[in-house]
Amino acid sequence: MQQRRPATDLHQTYIDILALLEHHRTLEALAENQDRSRRGVARQLQERQNTAELQRRFRGLHPADLGFILEGLEPDDRVRTWAALDSRQAAEAIVEVDGAVRTWLIGGTPHHRLIRIAESLDPDDLAWIADDLPEEVMSDVRASIGEVGRTLLQQADAYPPQSVGRLMSLEVVTVRDTRTIAEVLHDLQVRAELPDHLDRLFVVDGRNLLRGAVSLQSLVVTSPDTAIDAVMERDPLAFRPTDLAANAARAFERYDLVSLPVVNDRGKLVGRLTVDAVVDFIRVTSEKEALAMAGLRGAEDMFAPVWESARNRSLWLFVNLLTAFVATRFIGLFESTIQELVSLATLMPIVASIGGNTGNQTVALVIRGFAFEQLSDATRRHLLRKEMVVGLLNGLVWGSLAGLTAGLFYRRLALGIVMMAAIILNLMIAAAVGVLVPFALHRMGRDPAQGSSVLLTFVTDSMGFFLFLGLAWFYL
Amino acid sequence: MQQRRPATDLHQTYIDILALLEHHRTLEALAENQDRSRRGVARQLQERQNTAELQRRFRGLHPADLGFILEGLEPDDRVRTWAALDSRQAAEAIVEVDGAVRTWLIGGTPHHRLIRIAESLDPDDLAWIADDLPEEVMSDVRASIGEVGRTLLQQADAYPPQSVGRLMSLEVVTVRDTRTIAEVLHDLQVRAELPDHLDRLFVVDGRNLLRGAVSLQSLVVTSPDTAIDAVMERDPLAFRPTDLAANAARAFERYDLVSLPVVNDRGKLVGRLTVDAVVDFIRVTSEKEALAMAGLRGAEDMFAPVWESARNRSLWLFVNLLTAFVATRFIGLFESTIQELVSLATLMPIVASIGGNTGNQTVALVIRGFAFEQLSDATRRHLLRKEMVVGLLNGLVWGSLAGLTAGLFYRRLALGIVMMAAIILNLMIAAAVGVLVPFALHRMGRDPAQGSSVLLTFVTDSMGFFLFLGLAWFYL
Repeated sequence: MQQRRPATDLHQTYIDILALLEHHRTLEALAENQDRSRRGVARQLQERQNTAELQRRFRGLHPADLGFILEGLEPDDRVRTWAALDSRQAAEAIVEVDGAVRTWLIGGTPHHRLIRIAESLDPDDLAWIADDLPEEVMSDVRASIGEVGRTLLQQADAYPPQSVGRLMSLEVVTVRDTRTIAEVLHDLQVRAELPDHLDRLFVVDGRNLLRGAVSLQSLVVTSPDTAIDAVMERDPLAFRPTDLAANAARAFERYDLVSLPVVNDRGKLVGRLTVDAVVDFIRVTSEKEALAMAGLRGAEDMFAPVWESARNRSLWLFVNLLTAFVATRFIGLFESTIQELVSLATLMPIVASIGGNTGNQTVALVIRGFAFEQLSDATRRHLLRKEMVVGLLNGLVWGSLAGLTAGLFYRRLALGIVMMAAIILNLMIAAAVGVLVPFALHRMGRDPAQGSSVLLTFVTDSMGFFLFLGLAWFYL
Repeated sequence: MQQRRPATDLHQTYIDILALLEHHRTLEALAENQDRSRRGVARQLQERQNTAELQRRFRGLHPADLGFILEGLEPDDRVRTWAALDSRQAAEAIVEVDGAVRTWLIGGTPHHRLIRIAESLDPDDLAWIADDLPEEVMSDVRASIGEVGRTLLQQADAYPPQSVGRLMSLEVVTVRDTRTIAEVLHDLQVRAELPDHLDRLFVVDGRNLLRGAVSLQSLVVTSPDTAIDAVMERDPLAFRPTDLAANAARAFERYDLVSLPVVNDRGKLVGRLTVDAVVDFIRVTSEKEALAMAGLRGAEDMFAPVWESARNRSLWLFVNLLTAFVATRFIGLFESTIQELVSLATLMPIVASIGGNTGNQTVALVIRGFAFEQLSDATRRHLLRKEMVVGLLNGLVWGSLAGLTAGLFYRRLALGIVMMAAIILNLMIAAAVGVLVPFALHRMGRDPAQGSSVLLTFVTDSMGFFLFLGLAWFYL
C-alpha cells in the first residue's frame, strides 16, 4: 500500500483526469466520423499519447484515490477507466469503492477478467468482497487459489455478516511467552515483512491461548535481555469472532486503539482486528444510517440506472403515502367545519408541521443517546418529563406567536386562541412520542434510527389536524 | 492511558454504578430524617462502605469509561460523582466528556478546584478544552504551568478553530537523517517513554526540515547498521497547521493512517497529528451535523436545564414557523375553491408531503456526494437530469396510485386526475430543487447539510399546495 503516494490535492487530480477523459472522448468522436484509413498520423499519435498519459496517471495513484475517482466518474468514463486498468490495479480499486459502485463494476466485467482480478486479491480482501462476486466466478477462484487461501476464505465465510469475524484479518504475528525481547527482535528481522497496522504483537502460550500483548514501542525501548513475560500487558481487551462488529468499533473509538486480538471461545488467538477495517466499517454503517433516515433503502451509486434508483426509494414513498392518507382522514372528519370556516384549511398544515419539527428534534437526541448506549429506564422517565416541559415552553412561545399572527390576519381572536392551544398540545404530544417511540423500537430489538421519524410524523400530522380542527369545531 | 483497563462490559459497569448511587441516595435520605447523633454505628459504617465502594469503582475505570458514565448520569448523581473524583481523575474525565456536558460540569465547579484540575492536564489536553474554561481560571493556570507549558499553549491557541494546528500534538519524536538504525534504537531506549500512537518517527535534517518518515516496523525488521536515509519513506504526506482539520481527517480515512507530520510554510516539522484526535474530531463533527439536520443548534446534554434546551431548538422552530406561514399563503389564495370542494383540503397535505419526501432523498444523496468531494459541474448536469427522470417515474407510479384512491374515495374521476398531475409535477420540482439547492449553498461557501432540507421542504410544501389547488381551480 505504501509504494504509491497519496494525492496531496485529490480534488485537483480528479479534475485533471476528467479533463483527460474529456479529451479522449473528443478524439474518439472525431475518429468515428472519419474513415480509419484516412486518419492522419498526427491524430493517431495524439490518441496514443492521450491513452498513455491516462494510464500513467492511474499507475501513480494510491488505490484509495483510484477508488474515489471511479466513484465520481459518470458511466461512460467509468467503463473506459475500468477497462484501462490492469488486473492488479483493478483488484486494489474494487476493494476501495463503495458497495453500489462495486456491484455496478462487477456486473459489467466479463467472467474471465473477474477471475483474474479476484486472483490478484489478498485472502482478506477476497473474503470482504466475496458476497458481491457471481457464484461461478467464486467457484473458479476457489479452485485456483490453493489450499491455504481456500481455508482462509472458508474461515471468514463461517461468521455472520456484521460480525468481528468478517472484519478481522487472519495475518497475526504471535510471540511465545517464554522468549526474550532479543529473540523476538531476531525473529522479526527474519520475517522482514510485517502486516500493516502492527502496533503490538500478541503473546500466546504453547497451546496458542492469548496471554498478553507487547507493543512495538516496548520492544524498541526495553533492554533486549528482558523476558517478554515481564513487559507484556496481561489479558488485553479481546473480542470473539461472533461478537458484533459495532461493539468492537465502539471500543476502538473509546480507547483509541490501533489493533485488537480476536480469540475463540476457548481463548485461542484466531485473528486480529485493525483500525483501518474499523474505520471503513464505521463509515459504511453511518452512511447507511444517514441514507436510511432520509428514506433510502441502501447506498446508491450516483450514476445508477434510473429504474434501480426508483426502486431503492419506493418502499419509503409507499409508507409515506399510506400514512399521509390515514393522517388526512382526520381532516376528512371535519370537512363540514372547514366548509364553514375555510381559513382552518390554510392554518392546519402549520400546526402539523411545527409538531413534526419539535418531535424530530427530540427523536434525534434520543437516537444519539442510544447510539452511545447511555439510555436506561431511569433516563427515559427523566427525558420524558423534561422533553414535555420543553414542548410546553416552546408551545407557549411559538403557539402564542402563531396564534396572534393568525388571529390578527383573519381578525378573529378565537381562531388565534384555538390555534395556540392546538400547537401547545401538539408540541407536548410530539415530545412524548419523540421519546417513547425510539424506546419502544429499541425494546423490540429494532434500530430506532430507521422507523422513529416516520411514526413520529404520522402522529404529529394526525394530531395536528385532529386537535386544531376538533377544537375549532367545538369552540368556533 | 494503558494503566487502567477498559471495561469489558461497559453497559454492565454503568448499571452497577447506577445501583451504587441509588443505594447512596437511599442512605442519604434516611440520614436526613434522623438526628445525626441518633444514627446507629451500623448505618454510619454502611454509608462509609458505600462511598468507599463507589470510589474504588471509579479508580478502576478507564478515563473514557468514566467520561461515558458521567454523560449518562442525571444531574444529582453527576454532581455527586464529579465531587468524589480527585483532580487527576477529574482532569482525565473532563477531556473525554462531550462539549455540552463539559460546560455543565465546569459551570458547577468552584474556581480553586478548576485550577487544580487544569494544572493536572497535559498541555495538549489543556489547549483542547481551554476555550471552555473561564478566563480567570485560564489566567491563573497560565501563571502556574511554567514557561514550557505556556509556550505550548500559545502555539496551539495561535491556530484557527477547526484547523490541523488545534488538533495536533506537539510531542514529536524526531530522528536526524544522518543516523543509523542502531543509533536511533539506542536513543529511543534512553528516552524510555514514547508518546501514544507512535507508528513512525519523523526524519529531519539539521535545520529541522522534514525529510521523511521511518516506521517502528522497519526499525525492528531492518539490520541495525543500515542508514536511516536508506529505509525512510521520502516526502511523506504532510499537512500544515493552518489546513482544515476536515481535510486531514479525510486523508486518515482514505489512507488508513495512524499519524501524520505537520510542517510549517518553510517545511519545518512543528507537530504530529494522530488517529485518536482525528477519530474524536470525526465523531464530534458528524454528530453536530446529524443534530443540525434535525434542527438543533448544537450537541445538547440530555440533562441540560429546560430553558437551555428550549433555546437550543428555537432558531429552527422560528424558521419553520415562518416558512410554514408563507407556504400556506398558497392555500389562502384558493380559499374559495376549497369552500366549493372541501375534499381538496383533505387531500392537499398528501401532495405536499410526498414531494418533501422524494426531495429529501435527493438532498441526502447530493450531500453525501459533497461530503466525499465527488461533485463537479458535469455531475450536476447528469444528476439533475437523472433525478428528474426518477421523479417523473415515481410520480407516475405513486401519483396514479394516490389519484386512483382519491378518485374512487370521493367518486370523482377528475379529482383523481388533478391529484395525479399535481404529484407528478411536484415530484419533478422536488428532484430539481433537491439537486440545485445543495449545489447553490455549496457554491456560496455554506455547508449544504444545514439549510438544504428547510429550503427544500419550503418549496415542496408551497408547490404542493399551489399545483394541486391551482389545477383544481382550473379544471374542476
